[in-house]
Amino acid sequence: MPLPEKALIAGIRGAAKAGKGAVVSGIGDDSAVLKPPPGHEILVTTDFTLEGVHFRREWHSPEVVGRRCLTRGLSDIAAMGGQPLAVFLSLALPGTLPQKWVDRFMKGLLGLAREFKVPLAGGDTAQSPRDILADIVVLGSVPKGTALLRSGAKPGDWIYVTGELGGGSAALKALIAGKKAKPRDFPRHFHPVPRIIVGDVLRRRRLATAMIDLSDGLSTDLTHICEESRVGAEILAADIPRARVGGLRKPVDLKLALHGGEDYELLFTAHPTTPIPNRIAHVPVTVVGHVTRGANVRLKSENGALTKLKPEGWEHFKQRRHSRIP
Amino acid sequence: MPLPEKALIAGIRGAAKAGKGAVVSGIGDDSAVLKPPPGHEILVTTDFTLEGVHFRREWHSPEVVGRRCLTRGLSDIAAMGGQPLAVFLSLALPGTLPQKWVDRFMKGLLGLAREFKVPLAGGDTAQSPRDILADIVVLGSVPKGTALLRSGAKPGDWIYVTGELGGGSAALKALIAGKKAKPRDFPRHFHPVPRIIVGDVLRRRRLATAMIDLSDGLSTDLTHICEESRVGAEILAADIPRARVGGLRKPVDLKLALHGGEDYELLFTAHPTTPIPNRIAHVPVTVVGHVTRGANVRLKSENGALTKLKPEGWEHFKQRRHSRIP
Repeated sequence: MPLPEKALIAGIRGAAKAGKGAVVSGIGDDSAVLKPPPGHEILVTTDFTLEGVHFRREWHSPEVVGRRCLTRGLSDIAAMGGQPLAVFLSLALPGTLPQKWVDRFMKGLLGLAREFKVPLAGGDTAQSPRDILADIVVLGSVPKGTALLRSGAKPGDWIYVTGELGGGSAALKALIAGKKAKPRDFPRHFHPVPRIIVGDVLRRRRLATAMIDLSDGLSTDLTHICEESRVGAEILAADIPRARVGGLRKPVDLKLALHGGEDYELLFTAHPTTPIPNRIAHVPVTVVGHVTRGANVRLKSENGALTKLKPEGWEHFKQRRHSRIP
Repeated sequence: MPLPEKALIAGIRGAAKAGKGAVVSGIGDDSAVLKPPPGHEILVTTDFTLEGVHFRREWHSPEVVGRRCLTRGLSDIAAMGGQPLAVFLSLALPGTLPQKWVDRFMKGLLGLAREFKVPLAGGDTAQSPRDILADIVVLGSVPKGTALLRSGAKPGDWIYVTGELGGGSAALKALIAGKKAKPRDFPRHFHPVPRIIVGDVLRRRRLATAMIDLSDGLSTDLTHICEESRVGAEILAADIPRARVGGLRKPVDLKLALHGGEDYELLFTAHPTTPIPNRIAHVPVTVVGHVTRGANVRLKSENGALTKLKPEGWEHFKQRRHSRIP
């Protein structure tokens, strides 16, 4: 059976070279031992990546699956304004899987880990009866009491998003329709970049009042912010930055930008008097609406009509629509 | 689709009542926020529990699957001498699974969590194409620099095990042979107890030089200790405490005690002059051999013959024999 052991160990050594000192003891003991930065709190997030649910072998190269797998975890750390400390990977593989697939998966995952200088510090492997199953665990940290929660939005705050929306799901829409989707035409889907640096800047400079990552889609993630903050929101359709995808770089449909998910951008709120730069770490930042009293999340169309914006993206712990792949 | 959301939230609330203050923010944000105890290091372990690999629905009640799932993680924390801080559960369920199964699984898992006053602080859920898939992540802590590693054994140290061995795998052997295995006749399999308290005592009183949990079987886990400590070992067959199982409470075969795995007892080494109690927290502690120079792991039979003890238990990252279920 193919084993990621070599890649795992290479990953740890590579990360150790990168100078991150949080891992006291990694693979080779019952548990990893981490030294949290003094005065910091620990962030923890876990995310499944399941074959047939989150990816398909015929649609996604092993490197892309590995990169997207880790992106899910790093994006959750970014959404708290945190820095990643260490990654843990539980990986179950069918006995028939070629070693090459595993090597290339680890290459994609460890490549992204290196970009953010975060070591792979442990995990578990098992033989899977059928599908490739991965669970990524990322530990991060923030100075005590500074994590950017979903619950801090106040009526009157402005609502911002980073980057462009709908690009993550546009590739999936094309693939499901039986069309080709070249990685270079859909970069946000095939080569997502978690917004660790932007999240860190927003936290350090105390710019945001609440934050979430756009993994489930704007409509669903904004609803999460509103529920946790006990507020409403009003979004302007015309102001939502839509991703340009495909060979012709056409903007995606508004529906994809509203509900698409898997963009791994950040949505945050800020006090109206807080000056927010147009770009943070080269990533565009755009106002898309404002926080209101009450509990209604509404969309203002270009002709000025206000309609209820229902959460039609993915719903964790609820509708269990964890993926758009049918 | 059935959802463990209610049970998850109930678990958090119950644990919060139990007074464990490590969780600053649990489910309901992008990441959980944990406050590590001052001056402590963080322990992290992840373990898969996969249907058809680690359990079968016709053999194991949902409560047993839930309890065994968390036992795997807690036992890894025990093996470091740590205290558990928080549990995270990634759970993928097939759409056809009855809600009742999920409720009972969570009952088994949260029951064990309550025994050790550890909160369920987050995780992920997904729809699984076929099988029930769980990945348990446990975070623990130890005062800085005190984690009991596998690498501290020295030639001349005595080798100890807690409890009795072979009981975990004896039930599986019976089930595979098509026999009935009543939970009350095979308590170690159906109702395992992670040795958190024993591990903590050994660490606090600085009794052990190295430690590992017996999840893969004595022969394999002792080999891990020897490899990490760069030593050999000699075990006395007659001294290995064999579990008594079945209606007649007969001791298991030596083979099961040597290679069986899934006992979740502790194996540790201690300096020959260190007085080790016969029982720690009511759990029997037994000398089974001693650490030697070199790299040979050997078994002395009752007639005095010395043979090489090969690691025939489960091998993480190597043979991928993560379970005995065929």
